[in-house]
Amino acid sequence: MSICAKYFPNEPEAPVVKTAFPGPKSQDAVKSLGQVSDARPVYFVADYEKSNGNYIVDVDGNTYLDVYAQIASIPLGYNNPALAEVARSDKMIRAIIDRPALGNFPGKDTEEIIQGLLKVAPKGQDKVWSALSGADANELAFKAAFMWYQSRRRGYNADFTSEETKSVMENQKPGSPDLAILSFERAFHGRLFATASTTRSKPIHKLDLPSFKWPKAQFPSYKYPLPDHVKENEEEDKRCLAIVEDAFKNAVAPIAAVLIEPIQSEGGDNHASQSFLQALRDITIKHGALLIMDEVQTGVGATGKFWAHEHFNITPPPDMVTFSKKFQSAGYYFHDPEIIPNVAYRQFNTWCGDPARMLLGGAIGAEVVKNDLPALVARVGDYLYKKLEVLAKEYPDYIHNLRGKDRGTFIAWSFKDASLRNKFLADLKKEGVNMGGCAEDSVRLRPTLVFEEKHADILIAAVKKVLASY
Amino acid sequence: MSICAKYFPNEPEAPVVKTAFPGPKSQDAVKSLGQVSDARPVYFVADYEKSNGNYIVDVDGNTYLDVYAQIASIPLGYNNPALAEVARSDKMIRAIIDRPALGNFPGKDTEEIIQGLLKVAPKGQDKVWSALSGADANELAFKAAFMWYQSRRRGYNADFTSEETKSVMENQKPGSPDLAILSFERAFHGRLFATASTTRSKPIHKLDLPSFKWPKAQFPSYKYPLPDHVKENEEEDKRCLAIVEDAFKNAVAPIAAVLIEPIQSEGGDNHASQSFLQALRDITIKHGALLIMDEVQTGVGATGKFWAHEHFNITPPPDMVTFSKKFQSAGYYFHDPEIIPNVAYRQFNTWCGDPARMLLGGAIGAEVVKNDLPALVARVGDYLYKKLEVLAKEYPDYIHNLRGKDRGTFIAWSFKDASLRNKFLADLKKEGVNMGGCAEDSVRLRPTLVFEEKHADILIAAVKKVLASY
Repeated sequence: MSICAKYFPNEPEAPVVKTAFPGPKSQDAVKSLGQVSDARPVYFVADYEKSNGNYIVDVDGNTYLDVYAQIASIPLGYNNPALAEVARSDKMIRAIIDRPALGNFPGKDTEEIIQGLLKVAPKGQDKVWSALSGADANELAFKAAFMWYQSRRRGYNADFTSEETKSVMENQKPGSPDLAILSFERAFHGRLFATASTTRSKPIHKLDLPSFKWPKAQFPSYKYPLPDHVKENEEEDKRCLAIVEDAFKNAVAPIAAVLIEPIQSEGGDNHASQSFLQALRDITIKHGALLIMDEVQTGVGATGKFWAHEHFNITPPPDMVTFSKKFQSAGYYFHDPEIIPNVAYRQFNTWCGDPARMLLGGAIGAEVVKNDLPALVARVGDYLYKKLEVLAKEYPDYIHNLRGKDRGTFIAWSFKDASLRNKFLADLKKEGVNMGGCAEDSVRLRPTLVFEEKHADILIAAVKKVLASY
Repeated sequence: MSICAKYFPNEPEAPVVKTAFPGPKSQDAVKSLGQVSDARPVYFVADYEKSNGNYIVDVDGNTYLDVYAQIASIPLGYNNPALAEVARSDKMIRAIIDRPALGNFPGKDTEEIIQGLLKVAPKGQDKVWSALSGADANELAFKAAFMWYQSRRRGYNADFTSEETKSVMENQKPGSPDLAILSFERAFHGRLFATASTTRSKPIHKLDLPSFKWPKAQFPSYKYPLPDHVKENEEEDKRCLAIVEDAFKNAVAPIAAVLIEPIQSEGGDNHASQSFLQALRDITIKHGALLIMDEVQTGVGATGKFWAHEHFNITPPPDMVTFSKKFQSAGYYFHDPEIIPNVAYRQFNTWCGDPARMLLGGAIGAEVVKNDLPALVARVGDYLYKKLEVLAKEYPDYIHNLRGKDRGTFIAWSFKDASLRNKFLADLKKEGVNMGGCAEDSVRLRPTLVFEEKHADILIAAVKKVLASY
């Protein structure tokens, strides 16, 4: 019995398109929502009660095969019964209504909840710190990195000097030092102020915000298909690594950590080679900086392994791995005890995470492992990729740089330009498929982890139908 | 029938202290929790299943009257049945398991959920933007303020220049301008990077973090009791307002917004007069800056009004009011349509809030209004304050600068020094009362909104017993 048959006996067989896009009820709802909120980015208003498995239903009764899944954030399909059971549990109800300040007054089940997240920790990681979103997770990881970096200079157990404790209250050094996080062109790490300073994908994410003057390096831009361009891509790795080395050498402020996505997601599904990532790891060690792997979008099974960077076996493992989205809870994994600051209350806040979301995260992790969903994703991804390769040959004007081979369903391709890409995504909705874009000219597949061959067939048929009409 | 009798028919009659503090089971649980988390700040490990109303129970079976309430965050008592009903609802279950990207794919009930938060908006505010924590709410408010400030220079509907869109990707001006938020000494606004730059309460919150070099002003330090020091306190207001004026005149970077708590909470329950806050409002208008009122700790009834700044009737009302904690959901209220950025996706992120927490927030707001809890808090606060005044005369060495008259149960006082304060808080736990500190030498009362005269009597008896032993 397939996992969808088990979870979703009533999953629709196919998309149903009843109205033009967006439908009249959706349009009315958007207008009304616009009175109390910024409804300009709304695609359609959903009926989550009726959504099921891989299908999202809108208020007009249109039923879409959803390969965007809430910006890559729905792990196990809509209205998953295993998660509903957890949501109905007394533990969840208490986590909702008796939300503790976890750092000061944890509950008797807090350790078990944390263990739920640790059970699926990336290889080499055995501790976790909880946050509330991907951006929050990254910023808390930055805080840990800066504290770690200064503790290496000062000595882990050394006291702060009075000059430090005094100057910090004025936002001045030495208490508030000039330190940097190195990130990559086209990276996306979030939209709070420190994370926005490391995000380099689109101006709209950053305009008008004061920023930390942190440096950037270049992420490799490979030629596809990869097997046909081994030499050029090796040269590209070398070029980009030299820029990282330069960033360390010419840094105005010391670089405490290098921050990277194993696959740049929002920035266009840009892949990096094993040797690039290993060389980056080596550079951080050489310069005494941490390596933070941002798995907010790539984590929790979507690439055919639980964590995308586990495809690369880099050694030693990253110092921190941040997560959110499909895990529905957020935070960072780590292993070095000295990443815990020397004194209590340095890494702290009122809630220290949300036990309701952590409980759900643990349940998601357990379901993914129990049903070996990364293997399913790898198998279906392979099936899907092969069909897309065929389509790419048939429609070379519309499927450029197909990427994501051997990376599960984490697949993307590019169009000639943004307007064509946007038209394609709109036309695909008319065929009952909800797909998302990335970068300026690309589309990304981000289905759930319970996306099966039968769903891939429907997707391929819709893509083919749209492209055939061009 | 009292509200507690209605909500909590089985609420304990009094604290029960069975073990030394912390108890042996709590100590074991902390040791075990320390293996997977930073357990150094843990006071005790709670049993939320057994906690009830104003009483928190620990794993050793000790039952504390809780006047700290998860760092001022439990609004309606532990295991409140009205909230449990909401937590068990199908809407909540879907909000948990089908968490939408609210900006792109809101659900059919999203508008209703937002309206739940708007029903209790501060006077003069009619829009809300959702966040995930108090720090997140403040940072999103900063983003809105910076975008608003630049749109006033550029013209609301003006396009970005190519120089702006290019320079911002390098974290350089003009796309990433030098702009500032002005905050106050002893303020606490959160611990992310931008909020940490505005937080000025303790070095431990900020050490080793790079910061924005934003300026600070001085928050009034009044002499208590207020009626005996009218003249000096007026002079103090003037002194502090002059510093704010200077900050605008001498600002290296333009100040886009002034950020203030109506009562500085973490920083020591420092109060400000109506005329100080009105003058501050006038200064922001004069200089074309926004006024952001941080009601993360003061909001949702604790001062005897739903929002603390409503005690002051400042006109025009603040431009943004941030909230979190007792509301269990977070965000900012506002009213000026131009605080919504001119282009979609500027204020945006994957989740745009958490509908589960927003649903709970709406339910909390509705219960507070339905039961007129601010009136209860005002009445009980008055009762409690009068008893503390008597104690302050009896124990002048241990109750300095009692403050919070006419501010509900939002009451604090100071000790001679930190060690005495810490001893008092520890001794109070032995009497079955869980109280929290603030600043270096003060204690703060932050009970739930269903704290009644009978609870105040127990609190007063415990305080008296401890002080009598000194």
